[in-house]
Amino acid sequence: MTHHRLDPDHFPNALGPGAPLLRLRPGDSLTAATLDARGLDAAGIERAARPNPMTGPVWVEGAAPGDALGVTIDAIVPARDWGWTRPGLTANVVEPDAVPRLAPGGDPVRWIIDRAAGTTRLEAPPPGLDRLVLPLAPMIGCFGVAPAGGEAISTATSGRHGGNMDWRGFAAGCTVWFPVAVPGALFFLGDGHAVQGDGEIAGTGVETACEMTVTFSLRQGWAIGWPRGEDARGRFTVGNARPLDGALQHATTEMVDWLGEAGLDPTAAGLLLGQVVRYEIANVYNPAYSVVCRVPPEWWPG
Amino acid sequence: MTHHRLDPDHFPNALGPGAPLLRLRPGDSLTAATLDARGLDAAGIERAARPNPMTGPVWVEGAAPGDALGVTIDAIVPARDWGWTRPGLTANVVEPDAVPRLAPGGDPVRWIIDRAAGTTRLEAPPPGLDRLVLPLAPMIGCFGVAPAGGEAISTATSGRHGGNMDWRGFAAGCTVWFPVAVPGALFFLGDGHAVQGDGEIAGTGVETACEMTVTFSLRQGWAIGWPRGEDARGRFTVGNARPLDGALQHATTEMVDWLGEAGLDPTAAGLLLGQVVRYEIANVYNPAYSVVCRVPPEWWPG
Amino acid sequence: MTHHRLDPDHFPNALGPGAPLLRLRPGDSLTAATLDARGLDAAGIERAARPNPMTGPVWVEGAAPGDALGVTIDAIVPARDWGWTRPGLTANVVEPDAVPRLAPGGDPVRWIIDRAAGTTRLEAPPPGLDRLVLPLAPMIGCFGVAPAGGEAISTATSGRHGGNMDWRGFAAGCTVWFPVAVPGALFFLGDGHAVQGDGEIAGTGVETACEMTVTFSLRQGWAIGWPRGEDARGRFTVGNARPLDGALQHATTEMVDWLGEAGLDPTAAGLLLGQVVRYEIANVYNPAYSVVCRVPPEWWPG
Amino acid sequence: MTHHRLDPDHFPNALGPGAPLLRLRPGDSLTAATLDARGLDAAGIERAARPNPMTGPVWVEGAAPGDALGVTIDAIVPARDWGWTRPGLTANVVEPDAVPRLAPGGDPVRWIIDRAAGTTRLEAPPPGLDRLVLPLAPMIGCFGVAPAGGEAISTATSGRHGGNMDWRGFAAGCTVWFPVAVPGALFFLGDGHAVQGDGEIAGTGVETACEMTVTFSLRQGWAIGWPRGEDARGRFTVGNARPLDGALQHATTEMVDWLGEAGLDPTAAGLLLGQVVRYEIANVYNPAYSVVCRVPPEWWPG
Repeated sequence: MTHHRLDPDHFPNALGPGAPLLRLRPGDSLTAATLDARGLDAAGIERAARPNPMTGPVWVEGAAPGDALGVTIDAIVPARDWGWTRPGLTANVVEPDAVPRLAPGGDPVRWIIDRAAGTTRLEAPPPGLDRLVLPLAPMIGCFGVAPAGGEAISTATSGRHGGNMDWRGFAAGCTVWFPVAVPGALFFLGDGHAVQGDGEIAGTGVETACEMTVTFSLRQGWAIGWPRGEDARGRFTVGNARPLDGALQHATTEMVDWLGEAGLDPTAAGLLLGQVVRYEIANVYNPAYSVVCRVPPEWWPG
Repeated sequence: MTHHRLDPDHFPNALGPGAPLLRLRPGDSLTAATLDARGLDAAGIERAARPNPMTGPVWVEGAAPGDALGVTIDAIVPARDWGWTRPGLTANVVEPDAVPRLAPGGDPVRWIIDRAAGTTRLEAPPPGLDRLVLPLAPMIGCFGVAPAGGEAISTATSGRHGGNMDWRGFAAGCTVWFPVAVPGALFFLGDGHAVQGDGEIAGTGVETACEMTVTFSLRQGWAIGWPRGEDARGRFTVGNARPLDGALQHATTEMVDWLGEAGLDPTAAGLLLGQVVRYEIANVYNPAYSVVCRVPPEWWPG
Repeated sequence: MTHHRLDPDHFPNALGPGAPLLRLRPGDSLTAATLDARGLDAAGIERAARPNPMTGPVWVEGAAPGDALGVTIDAIVPARDWGWTRPGLTANVVEPDAVPRLAPGGDPVRWIIDRAAGTTRLEAPPPGLDRLVLPLAPMIGCFGVAPAGGEAISTATSGRHGGNMDWRGFAAGCTVWFPVAVPGALFFLGDGHAVQGDGEIAGTGVETACEMTVTFSLRQGWAIGWPRGEDARGRFTVGNARPLDGALQHATTEMVDWLGEAGLDPTAAGLLLGQVVRYEIANVYNPAYSVVCRVPPEWWPG
Repeated sequence: MTHHRLDPDHFPNALGPGAPLLRLRPGDSLTAATLDARGLDAAGIERAARPNPMTGPVWVEGAAPGDALGVTIDAIVPARDWGWTRPGLTANVVEPDAVPRLAPGGDPVRWIIDRAAGTTRLEAPPPGLDRLVLPLAPMIGCFGVAPAGGEAISTATSGRHGGNMDWRGFAAGCTVWFPVAVPGALFFLGDGHAVQGDGEIAGTGVETACEMTVTFSLRQGWAIGWPRGEDARGRFTVGNARPLDGALQHATTEMVDWLGEAGLDPTAAGLLLGQVVRYEIANVYNPAYSVVCRVPPEWWPG
């Protein structure tokens, strides 16, 4: 039950093989300094290349292919008093004909993060947004483990191994399990957002350097197919793919399999999910989109 | 402010031109007997062909192309003590390779609706679901107006005119505006569900005959592009298309346009939506999928 | 074996129920004057509203639901010496971020049709296209029958009934079968293009008024699911949906069913198609995209 | 102008960083022994793990990020007298509801390759395919260069770097250019098919070990975005993504950029492509689908 701290000099842009910065045990926790999506640190100094430079990898003792690595998010704290977003909506969330009119592009926009008040607001708000003050709701944009098959997958995208899922639900109090594909699991994290809506439809949340604290656990022999998790609103699965339909198919298939482990055959799982399932659109911007499939706690079988 | 009642003999399977059953004025309300998706009435008698036979059309005095017809859902009451669902998940929400294993098919499944207790449960629950008792959350599966261009669109699908959107949010307390495309608007409604999860992933909710009460309003010259609405959780737009990405694009474009009417230019709308938008997957089963784009009430500009 | 001629005053914008302009018998042929996609006739006079006003409906004696209506395209002749196209690529065929740069929009562009030479060229070619002279390859953009279920479907889109498939393969020498859904079939045609590439990626071919000659046949009890056809390059099926993947699924499923009628079980059909199938992207512009699945004549079983 | 030969012991399953097996110069050619998709060699011995073990990487002297590596396919010769395919259609090319009926699964199916006759046929043909003898049309399923950003991408999929595009057009006589992303380019090849239809809709071609001969060239400072190529039927670009629409968008965008280099502005490119473009569906099976966008040689500007 050791607490570790990581504040590295080198930040990879892909989740894959690599020399671990740290070896720890299940039950240990870690506080990691993370850069923002452009590689800027707590002092605003560029320390690594985009996209989404990672803190890691971390070796978890005993983790082997066929296991699931549990990661409980204890805290995500913005490490500076400002963040940034892309300037408008991303082109792929509006009708193609409306792109020239509705997805204008431009320079990044700066947000003031008031850590004492727990809020963020635009530094130079346009007309109509002068009084917009949002509560901070910090989240992890990109985290996961090394994938199988010798792959090293860009932090721009995501897959079975996790990665850049950009879901606002990856917040303090949430536990996520990733399918371990290589010895030691090789865990990475970074890309903190001070707040973000569904879908990451501006192509960013309010991007900032963070201090992220997580605690690790290991479920040996739990061969999951996609990230699974649990928070106060129930158990969930995550599917990553394009189009959204494909992401939803992965998440739903994984949930039916999980319900199978809980004793429901596919027909029963369908009868339950058909009436109680909740979906969340995590991101609709990255090369792989992400959809969350959730069962509220009161309806989990048993 | 007249209250009307409709309990017709004929139930069309397409939203389009047709002789109105009733002419009413903005401000009037209507209680309509509706059949279930297979055409069974409150007594379980087959009164019309599938899919989703409609009660309508209703002519609204003064409604003309370029207006928006407001429909406030006052009440949806199941009209009998049972409903039915398809037996498992629909094939298009699981990974294609998993369809034979996870989307088994079979006969419709019967649910007991306890109107006094406000609950529903399976008549013959499979193992693991013996204690499943769901609160009723009645919703309208299919409603809308006649489309433009002389079209008559099947109640199996949806479009700008509304139609078979199968969203669990179309519940009592919700107001929806449809773009009027023909004189009189020609409004239809039906396809009640006693309860349903996100996405209608079983291909049905708990389908039943209902008594639906709605109140009409008219906003002349409000030329909206897709259904818009408002409920306790804020204002929303609905996009209908395949794949989900396309439905989300329509809903998001419509929301940016609405925010424009509220004074935000596209850049400002993007800055706001990027951090506060909420999406809901209404249906991922029908020929057109439906996505809801929502702004919580505290973030609406002005 | 009567030859008919149609040159009507009224041109519907939806394929659906309607009073037939003409009743003919299987074996009969028809020469129809057709308007262009904007409703301009051979003299350039606007005679009907866009999109794609149709010549029809035509009643075919004996045609009933469950039959297939055969339409052999005998000739498509441009009826004037000019056509038009949209000015550039449609937004949905380029990467979303590239839309402002690559899909510029603007007024329609005029092409000169030289019927004697059998060619077409731009009236005012931009730099680099001064010497572009294309051979005429006339095709039918939109044709089909009334759909089932009381629907009337816009000529902007397509479905099982045919409609706006905008495939350059619908040219002289091709026979197409449509699934009859209403008594008399109710056939429509129009929207001629003097030439067009794959995918209709400019949103138009070279649009012009035409004289189209077709011959009808009837295969009673041949309950096909989607349009099927045959030309010099073999038999084909057409699927219409979004995204392209869905159109391809419909076309492939229909082809496997056709091969089943020819004696191949699904495993054998898969073994054959896997090595010999040919696909064509008919349109990637309309609300429903169209994909053609083809078996070259040398590989058809038996 | 040296000719090299590669017959390695180790075969990676990802395109990425790695110690080169060979260093050669632009102008040199290479004959490589390649394994089949399951790792079986010319003798049928399993030499590596699936999927698609590669022969490579090869270092090309002088290649640097921002260049394009040209690969001319000189010859692809099956190295044994048999191949194999998956047994039927893959689930994702038929309608979801038809998967249990039309995509039956089972053991791989064996094909006899008659190298003298230049044909292949099923070893145990099912009824209806007894006389099916296909001409050999050998192609490269998977080839490309190391991607950017430290990625190593599985040979199951494809991207800007090439990879598992599974297009039957990658045959002798074709030249392909890949965007160089790392010093030396790091080229890989393998996954030969004796023949394959469009789309790789059985999930395989007739998979076999091969001898592949290619010649390298280098265009320095030609910063292309996606694979480009040329063969007897003209110039083409390749886009890799899901859904097919996304693959088509990448390919079309790349072609418009290429036409820009040839002197056409986007409007002119749109006017040309709209009437002459040809698309081919390369694969609709892998995690990224592949679409080819082509301009026939007679219409290339200048």
